[in-house]
Amino acid sequence: MKLYILGGDARIGFMAEGLQREGYTVSGLGLMRDTIPEIMPEEGIPGADAVVLGVPCTRDGQTVFAPFYNGLLPLELVRQLSSPGKPVLCGMASGEIHRRFASADVPLIDYFAREELAVLNAVPTAEGAIEIAMQKLPITIFGAGCLVTGYGRIGKYLASTLKALGADVTVSVRKPRDHAACRIGGLKSVETAELSGCVSDFDVIFNTIPCRIFDAEMLSNMRQETLLIDLASRPGGVDREAAEAFGIKYEWALSLPGKVAPRSAGEILCETVRNILMERNL
Amino acid sequence: MKLYILGGDARIGFMAEGLQREGYTVSGLGLMRDTIPEIMPEEGIPGADAVVLGVPCTRDGQTVFAPFYNGLLPLELVRQLSSPGKPVLCGMASGEIHRRFASADVPLIDYFAREELAVLNAVPTAEGAIEIAMQKLPITIFGAGCLVTGYGRIGKYLASTLKALGADVTVSVRKPRDHAACRIGGLKSVETAELSGCVSDFDVIFNTIPCRIFDAEMLSNMRQETLLIDLASRPGGVDREAAEAFGIKYEWALSLPGKVAPRSAGEILCETVRNILMERNL
Amino acid sequence: MKLYILGGDARIGFMAEGLQREGYTVSGLGLMRDTIPEIMPEEGIPGADAVVLGVPCTRDGQTVFAPFYNGLLPLELVRQLSSPGKPVLCGMASGEIHRRFASADVPLIDYFAREELAVLNAVPTAEGAIEIAMQKLPITIFGAGCLVTGYGRIGKYLASTLKALGADVTVSVRKPRDHAACRIGGLKSVETAELSGCVSDFDVIFNTIPCRIFDAEMLSNMRQETLLIDLASRPGGVDREAAEAFGIKYEWALSLPGKVAPRSAGEILCETVRNILMERNL
Amino acid sequence: MKLYILGGDARIGFMAEGLQREGYTVSGLGLMRDTIPEIMPEEGIPGADAVVLGVPCTRDGQTVFAPFYNGLLPLELVRQLSSPGKPVLCGMASGEIHRRFASADVPLIDYFAREELAVLNAVPTAEGAIEIAMQKLPITIFGAGCLVTGYGRIGKYLASTLKALGADVTVSVRKPRDHAACRIGGLKSVETAELSGCVSDFDVIFNTIPCRIFDAEMLSNMRQETLLIDLASRPGGVDREAAEAFGIKYEWALSLPGKVAPRSAGEILCETVRNILMERNL
Repeated sequence: MKLYILGGDARIGFMAEGLQREGYTVSGLGLMRDTIPEIMPEEGIPGADAVVLGVPCTRDGQTVFAPFYNGLLPLELVRQLSSPGKPVLCGMASGEIHRRFASADVPLIDYFAREELAVLNAVPTAEGAIEIAMQKLPITIFGAGCLVTGYGRIGKYLASTLKALGADVTVSVRKPRDHAACRIGGLKSVETAELSGCVSDFDVIFNTIPCRIFDAEMLSNMRQETLLIDLASRPGGVDREAAEAFGIKYEWALSLPGKVAPRSAGEILCETVRNILMERNL
Repeated sequence: MKLYILGGDARIGFMAEGLQREGYTVSGLGLMRDTIPEIMPEEGIPGADAVVLGVPCTRDGQTVFAPFYNGLLPLELVRQLSSPGKPVLCGMASGEIHRRFASADVPLIDYFAREELAVLNAVPTAEGAIEIAMQKLPITIFGAGCLVTGYGRIGKYLASTLKALGADVTVSVRKPRDHAACRIGGLKSVETAELSGCVSDFDVIFNTIPCRIFDAEMLSNMRQETLLIDLASRPGGVDREAAEAFGIKYEWALSLPGKVAPRSAGEILCETVRNILMERNL
Repeated sequence: MKLYILGGDARIGFMAEGLQREGYTVSGLGLMRDTIPEIMPEEGIPGADAVVLGVPCTRDGQTVFAPFYNGLLPLELVRQLSSPGKPVLCGMASGEIHRRFASADVPLIDYFAREELAVLNAVPTAEGAIEIAMQKLPITIFGAGCLVTGYGRIGKYLASTLKALGADVTVSVRKPRDHAACRIGGLKSVETAELSGCVSDFDVIFNTIPCRIFDAEMLSNMRQETLLIDLASRPGGVDREAAEAFGIKYEWALSLPGKVAPRSAGEILCETVRNILMERNL
Repeated sequence: MKLYILGGDARIGFMAEGLQREGYTVSGLGLMRDTIPEIMPEEGIPGADAVVLGVPCTRDGQTVFAPFYNGLLPLELVRQLSSPGKPVLCGMASGEIHRRFASADVPLIDYFAREELAVLNAVPTAEGAIEIAMQKLPITIFGAGCLVTGYGRIGKYLASTLKALGADVTVSVRKPRDHAACRIGGLKSVETAELSGCVSDFDVIFNTIPCRIFDAEMLSNMRQETLLIDLASRPGGVDREAAEAFGIKYEWALSLPGKVAPRSAGEILCETVRNILMERNL
């Protein structure tokens, strides 16, 4: 099976090498890996069984996101060179892009929406958050009072990893089910609604809830010594101006996997893309 | 707040004591605990803010399940003595019973259907299963090759507990998402569809999937040394006759929480019932 | 290399099979394993590069401990059949026996005195103790208040295993160093000298200290609900008569590895014997 | 009880605050903490029940190590102001200094030689090492192939912490006892003597052995991608010139506790000093 991989950040190069090791014949452009032959899209796309773009596939809606390539690659070109029925795999495609490819009978598959990717990305995200906490705090994670807001994929893995490091971990949750899950995982839990009453108890707070939990009122209850690390994607869970006004030590940590562990993040993408290909018998 | 608690197995007595410690005024019948005053339903139910029955609430569909009470307590009597709007909490009520109480405007609430109870019950279930394995195997759990089929609430907790004991744990799953979740939890995983090819590799197998995975064909691939512990509720996941024919060591472990840890199981019921009462401001 | 293995309990048979799998040519007597050829000592010992006896090697000081053999095997016979320089490996040999073999230039090596055996035996000992606690307690290990007295090999492994199961574990120690070691292992600690003040706080107590910690005074401070499991070898750490008088639930758990996991215990012996043989280039 | 604390790095200020919280009346000089009253040695030392210096107590053998104090404090002054029988606690005192104080009947106690301090310091050391690995590696610790050389206090804690983070951990050891201890701790082990045959298998190597294990020959067997973090104190375990010549990514990480977690390191010193004082009924 032949794959053509176009653009993307450092993760995509490692993903390409992973797919090559899995037995795929891989070529591409803008990957920064000597091990992957470079050919132009005009040659690569028509000869490929599947095309893979980066994450995001585009930033401007017009050109393929390809920071390591010196030139512009129109997304429209990818569509035109693709054959009906041959899939294009990409990350974070908008509805508009989906419609454009669908109109040409090119199956556009967003690997970034796959659940296994979200599960696996919790690992580099949590490690990146812990690395930040280690750098910024004058204390060890061992023994530190840690609050994790939210008990989704990232919250779960982060909380249990902090506990494995010896931290004193509390998770803020809203459902009796999640209080129970915390308990059997050896974690303390607190009602999210009652957070303002205990938010001053912690040395470090990791927010994973993608809404404005840390508004001015919540921030006014915090101690200045407490480090606040926001893992929620845009618009984030913290009122940044209020945090600054109160002198809160605040870090907005976005897109950690690609930043702190591009090779591991690339292997996670590799595994996800391979699952998609295998489900299509590619 | 006054509670009247009627019947049930050993767990219900411990539940009653737990609710008493939480500050409720508790009386009951058939509880086997000296600490709970005994009064008859005719007096207890009308005076109570809520009535609590055991799990199951009835076995014959007619009388309250009350193995520690020498006499018959018709379920109909409970309904008649209950006041409209005052809740009756019970475990595993059938649709017919729900309808009967609804027709009298008595809210019937099945605490056994609550998610936090299912989460918490994974603990005594897993410990009970591990106790059986310890008793039946000539080897330690440490280092034992363990297969856990299914990655639901029990499968997850059981697998991670076996790993914590030093076992070599594999989980059989069906979704890429669950393979990923196993990996980040430090567990091996295998496709359920490919189980028959590796089922002879294990020292002990814990089944948590409530359908007939272990049919004659699967059993024919097992080694006789392997211990098979079935945690699936009726009808179970194992063809019992075939297991016997193949000489497989087989244990069907039903309703473990009440058997292996009635006090802990009672405290779990207590917490669940208290959550229900608090949500109703009782 | 040829080994001749004589007598011993169920562990020795599993040890013999393990050594066979490692590549040794193994024969023996009184092993109860079909896989090991049976020959008499008169033939087996002179032809062997090393002889292995059970643990203990003798109970009466005169005959080889061989419960699965219908007959008496004088220890003196082993000595007479052994060649100078060819080692005899055994468990728990007295000074008198050592002297007897030394006088014939037969190296007698006590494998039971090896440190790696003591380290590895902590695993079946701890699992056996936990199995007893699971059987005797009406609560789960998860959440149970556990006291472990002593922080030697067994205490360390037992305490960390109980913690891995979710117990609330306290260890009684005497040195600042051990308090520190408990803390970094996530365990609470208490001064052994101050034990009587908190001994009523626990659901289960595991004693690993081989001296009379649990005398009448200490026992008088315990609750009757608390389970006391004594893992100390003879004479044990508990005043048994006082325990009975106070109605304390008491279990003296001796020689757990051979009882609860003979196959694993045999593999541990196998590994220890193999280390000894390899150090002697056998 | 009155303590006078003189000089030292950031840890000593946190130690002073900790001792204040424990109930001691603390004054000092060169501590950089607003909470501790500053007085000169001429006043502070004669009025104190014990004097505490930093770690090391001196760098030049003549003056007290006091980087936050603008001036020179002769060690001889401390000795002259001290009263016979009143202890001086310090870190890393030479034999010469010990003799000087002994001649004046001033008990000089080296808190840095205490075992509990060595045990507790393993935590910030391990976390500091992991922080470096997180920063320098393009992969997550989860899944990383890690080698820890040596299984002393730091090696043990570091190896088990890496395992808790999901790493694939191997420890190099030399005794059968330590191979056994690794196994029951869930760690792989390799003979230190056979290290050169497998040193290319790892993504990161943490050296804790204070002798030249990583000489030119060992380094010649390593991959350039492998990160080598040396935790051994001077002269370290790595031939630095050879490492540079082979292009090995090498980090010599000395005195991590004070660098990565001065507050936690100070609390560890506080606990150790308090233990010493309590043993002297101070």
